[in-house]
Amino acid sequence: MRDQGATRHFAEELDRLKQRLLAMGGLAEERVRTAVRALIERDSTVMADVLDRDGDINELHLEIDDRCFKLLALHQPMAGDLRTIVAAAKINSDLERVGDLAVNIAEAALLYVSHPPVKPLVDIPRMSSMAQGMLHDALDAFVALDVQRAQAVLDRDDALDELKSQVFRELLTYMLGDPRTIEPGIDLILISRHLERIGDHATNIAEDVIFMVAARDVRHPGP
Amino acid sequence: MRDQGATRHFAEELDRLKQRLLAMGGLAEERVRTAVRALIERDSTVMADVLDRDGDINELHLEIDDRCFKLLALHQPMAGDLRTIVAAAKINSDLERVGDLAVNIAEAALLYVSHPPVKPLVDIPRMSSMAQGMLHDALDAFVALDVQRAQAVLDRDDALDELKSQVFRELLTYMLGDPRTIEPGIDLILISRHLERIGDHATNIAEDVIFMVAARDVRHPGP
Repeated sequence: MRDQGATRHFAEELDRLKQRLLAMGGLAEERVRTAVRALIERDSTVMADVLDRDGDINELHLEIDDRCFKLLALHQPMAGDLRTIVAAAKINSDLERVGDLAVNIAEAALLYVSHPPVKPLVDIPRMSSMAQGMLHDALDAFVALDVQRAQAVLDRDDALDELKSQVFRELLTYMLGDPRTIEPGIDLILISRHLERIGDHATNIAEDVIFMVAARDVRHPGP
Repeated sequence: MRDQGATRHFAEELDRLKQRLLAMGGLAEERVRTAVRALIERDSTVMADVLDRDGDINELHLEIDDRCFKLLALHQPMAGDLRTIVAAAKINSDLERVGDLAVNIAEAALLYVSHPPVKPLVDIPRMSSMAQGMLHDALDAFVALDVQRAQAVLDRDDALDELKSQVFRELLTYMLGDPRTIEPGIDLILISRHLERIGDHATNIAEDVIFMVAARDVRHPGP
């Protein structure tokens, strides 16, 4: 049996875990925003900066993983608390991948700006806003235990996929018309795929939230 | 305190978890192999079959996730056992993504075969063998708790990346020379990226194995 002090300590640690996860989410979102802004502004210095600074996210990823592990090892939580920690560990992995994708975007952007622009960028910034919005809302849903908001994230994934297809068709037209746009066109297609995958990670997070919250009501594990 | 029966039951369940994870790994590997074989043989029926049958992997993913959760909830394992279960849950996620990537390869392959072939495929089958080999060895390392074998997987990731760059440069030459190869060329570039990502997931698994085994010796958590 746990005494009151241990229970309070556990609650504080769980709260701290959520805060660090939100910090990680904020950082991942910021990297995506910065990478795409650098693409639009053709700013290689900022792109190089995104490549250099991914150590922060990787460190936070390890710290959060460690927090999850220690909470499991030291407190042996049950039911809802256990589910929250397991969800936090999964969300942590998704956010780390979002950070990697921001790096991938910056890498492709560096190649892209070594050529003349293919076209004014309209849909890629839109894809970026959508993906960031989905990520943000999925994390809000995690903190608020809000199944409806999580469900709304899932519903937006199709729109992002549609935009990705549109980007592809438009770029293909340019590439077929002028071979000089082939190489930078491929860079933009890859960037649109990276943004689509960020939406997929937001979807994963939203699914984890639904599982975490819904199962809290229907399952009662424990010895 | 646990009685002997509960300890034996836990050991059996942990063993069963590993077996199911290996089954999942075998299934994911088979899907990748089948998707790439269908690409080489230009067999749309087999590609469609890869798309249709991804329910198996998704079901196994949920089952393994559930096993991990129940082991945590019912047995409250510590130290090495806890680390094994956490590693298993992560590996499970990686294998599910490998299954998704096999689907992505089959989707791109379906588009690819709607055009005449760009060139005889040599490096993509090589990338596929390498990625499958890495996946296989990472899972072997998991079962055998073999840090050296896991490390060898990490060392092979650069070669896979190099092959991906080579595929890109070669296809770009074709695309610049003949606009009819642009669209199928992009399909092949995307397939090479999917294979590279399968290598990344094998790398993740190998890293989890190293963490799991190494930390068993150096960390002693517990209340």
